[in-house]
Amino acid sequence: MLEQLRRDVLEANLEIVRRGLVLYTFGNASGIDRASGLVAIKPSGVPYESMTPEDLVITDLDGNIVEGKLRPSSDLATHLHLYKEFPTIGGVVHTHSEYATAWAQAGREIPAFGTTHADYFYGPVPVTDELTPEEINGDYVLNTGINITNRFKGLDPNAIPGVLVRGHAPFAWGKDAADAAYHATVLEAVARMAWFTVALNPTCTGVSQALLDRHYQRKHGAKATYGQGK
Amino acid sequence: MLEQLRRDVLEANLEIVRRGLVLYTFGNASGIDRASGLVAIKPSGVPYESMTPEDLVITDLDGNIVEGKLRPSSDLATHLHLYKEFPTIGGVVHTHSEYATAWAQAGREIPAFGTTHADYFYGPVPVTDELTPEEINGDYVLNTGINITNRFKGLDPNAIPGVLVRGHAPFAWGKDAADAAYHATVLEAVARMAWFTVALNPTCTGVSQALLDRHYQRKHGAKATYGQGK
Amino acid sequence: MLEQLRRDVLEANLEIVRRGLVLYTFGNASGIDRASGLVAIKPSGVPYESMTPEDLVITDLDGNIVEGKLRPSSDLATHLHLYKEFPTIGGVVHTHSEYATAWAQAGREIPAFGTTHADYFYGPVPVTDELTPEEINGDYVLNTGINITNRFKGLDPNAIPGVLVRGHAPFAWGKDAADAAYHATVLEAVARMAWFTVALNPTCTGVSQALLDRHYQRKHGAKATYGQGK
Amino acid sequence: MLEQLRRDVLEANLEIVRRGLVLYTFGNASGIDRASGLVAIKPSGVPYESMTPEDLVITDLDGNIVEGKLRPSSDLATHLHLYKEFPTIGGVVHTHSEYATAWAQAGREIPAFGTTHADYFYGPVPVTDELTPEEINGDYVLNTGINITNRFKGLDPNAIPGVLVRGHAPFAWGKDAADAAYHATVLEAVARMAWFTVALNPTCTGVSQALLDRHYQRKHGAKATYGQGK
Repeated sequence: MLEQLRRDVLEANLEIVRRGLVLYTFGNASGIDRASGLVAIKPSGVPYESMTPEDLVITDLDGNIVEGKLRPSSDLATHLHLYKEFPTIGGVVHTHSEYATAWAQAGREIPAFGTTHADYFYGPVPVTDELTPEEINGDYVLNTGINITNRFKGLDPNAIPGVLVRGHAPFAWGKDAADAAYHATVLEAVARMAWFTVALNPTCTGVSQALLDRHYQRKHGAKATYGQGK
Repeated sequence: MLEQLRRDVLEANLEIVRRGLVLYTFGNASGIDRASGLVAIKPSGVPYESMTPEDLVITDLDGNIVEGKLRPSSDLATHLHLYKEFPTIGGVVHTHSEYATAWAQAGREIPAFGTTHADYFYGPVPVTDELTPEEINGDYVLNTGINITNRFKGLDPNAIPGVLVRGHAPFAWGKDAADAAYHATVLEAVARMAWFTVALNPTCTGVSQALLDRHYQRKHGAKATYGQGK
Repeated sequence: MLEQLRRDVLEANLEIVRRGLVLYTFGNASGIDRASGLVAIKPSGVPYESMTPEDLVITDLDGNIVEGKLRPSSDLATHLHLYKEFPTIGGVVHTHSEYATAWAQAGREIPAFGTTHADYFYGPVPVTDELTPEEINGDYVLNTGINITNRFKGLDPNAIPGVLVRGHAPFAWGKDAADAAYHATVLEAVARMAWFTVALNPTCTGVSQALLDRHYQRKHGAKATYGQGK
Repeated sequence: MLEQLRRDVLEANLEIVRRGLVLYTFGNASGIDRASGLVAIKPSGVPYESMTPEDLVITDLDGNIVEGKLRPSSDLATHLHLYKEFPTIGGVVHTHSEYATAWAQAGREIPAFGTTHADYFYGPVPVTDELTPEEINGDYVLNTGINITNRFKGLDPNAIPGVLVRGHAPFAWGKDAADAAYHATVLEAVARMAWFTVALNPTCTGVSQALLDRHYQRKHGAKATYGQGK
């Protein structure tokens, strides 16, 4: 089973490169096997071209390395915190994709300007608060995760599968690593179109609640009408 | 005959992907056989790479499936309404191409800023009105089509072969599916150049009526001088 | 000799496609054999993929077709006028490359913001005046050429090998068709960087006269220090 | 040994092309062998496609050609000055990459807006002062180098491995030619994201000193936690 997880997580890591979200090694994907509580994550600073399933690092939810000779992604603690606090997710992706990162750097949430957004994110993509010097100088990577889950108090991570970490870059998640990579890709497209939109209309308020409801439920609700059904 | 229509519509669906107008499955093309009143349209949510002519869905103008095992594109009712109301068109394409979508999200029509625009669109590319909550909660996909044709009262769909659906994305059409895909591609290029233009000159008013007339008639009028003739 | 001219002009037409300056058939390149006064130009509306040297149309400077079965580019009269008025040039390229077109649509010249510009254009890239309705309704394509050469009164076409036709798009030229294609490519890069620059600094005045002199003469003056010499 | 240097420098010259930083021949990379004080640099105006290790020019730090039949890059004197004044660097890259060039043309330093920046540049990427007419008309290429090192008084070139030459374009450097090419690539990505950021938030002040410290030291300090260690 972990063989399949390794392959899926490797594939998600390669997918975010193919989709143009990653320069060099500035990104990482992980996946969790909820039954065993084990996580597969990209090793740190290893080129994508030569990565094999065996290079992935397997850890438990406390970050103990269970299998793997390489050091895990330096963002491991953020991934693990998200798995602990968002029990329904099965994959996490972090990239520095350029438009989403620009919104994160500008400290602005991405408003729901259109149906492309509404199909995947049920409301604005939120931006976290600034970390304090204490949080930065402390367990910084873990604190980045806590920062995200604090921002999601009152929000449903299944309805808004991504976030902008202020001054840093986006994280996205999903039911597995492939789904997280998919959401990271959509997030970048949505960020790009929103960036084009505010330039044309700085006071744009975005779609109505009715349209937001309609599009989100079209793909995700009990009465979903998109795709070929179950 | 429907075999040819299936192949043409498949090709138009692949063309909008090759032209970079489509992320994942965010787009669809259809074509109509006016003699029989039958429409071929992309199935919903099926990857382009593996799509065959047989995967296309054939419906009548009321949306009854005449042939095909898959569910048709969720935008079917919009396509059908356009075929009913615009009797001269033979193909419809819907994409979320990024610059055209930005204009749609910003709620701004695309002015005729230059001859590239004038060669294909005889005036601004219009943007529809906002749908009411009732229209959204009702037969939303059909109402999107009605919204478009309402906006075209007094406009000639042959002279302006595309529209921006406010808060959503563009639709384009043409004499067949290939022509609709061609107009969708030109619309995105025109949207992109117009976006670059307003950043340089926010009060740009665009080309003169004389230039608009000249360029449009150069390619489309009775005295067309472009190409190798009939 | 015309065989070589045909091949060179075909190559220039293909080069502007490879460089991303051309969508569909929105561009054309020509070259002149000054000894015979004959011009080779792209045929109108023919796809680049299947174009052969034999498809090119040979005309004299009055536009009489000397050789070729196809209709020449609809922009022929502009090319011919430039060859007549700029006796030192040997090639002309017209594209709707997107950033240069945006400056043309905005009606703004491209200031000499940096050394990339100064290496090729000895001063701003000028924009023509608006054509009058009479000029548009008259011999429009010829008048476009006259419009360009009027704008160059007092300017040296060898020192500024390109222009923006207001509300339309750029023309570029050079010692032969390849050189014209090269200048069209540089013009688009310069237009793009200038567009990025004004967004950062709307009141940017560009490089000093000393730097403009230095860079232009570095590549073009009698004391040129760039490249491997003659 | 110089054979290896030649190969490394050729590879760095090819890498900046592959990364999209170079149009035609608008860029050059060099490397130094500190033991012998010899520098390998790209020849001037030679196409990348056909360049071989033997085409590279070997000079001493005074610019005397030690080996090579071709004329060295016209920017040689700038490279040599950087090697003299920054004794810890082993490679220099100059490009006209488009977003970094836009910041240089606009005369604005690139603020440290996020962690992507902080991972590589420990503070803003500085922009040099304008050269005087005397400096331009004198030994211009050397003066460009002096202009850079003057700007770095009080700055550590190892902590900020790049600069914007005002009205011109970026230079980057590193421990060898490959590292310089890597920094040139990151600089362009950082320039692009910063450009997107100021459009969203013109008064953005960037990351806190604590975050800047944390990210820079994460990759470069004695307690670096990124990658697979030494």
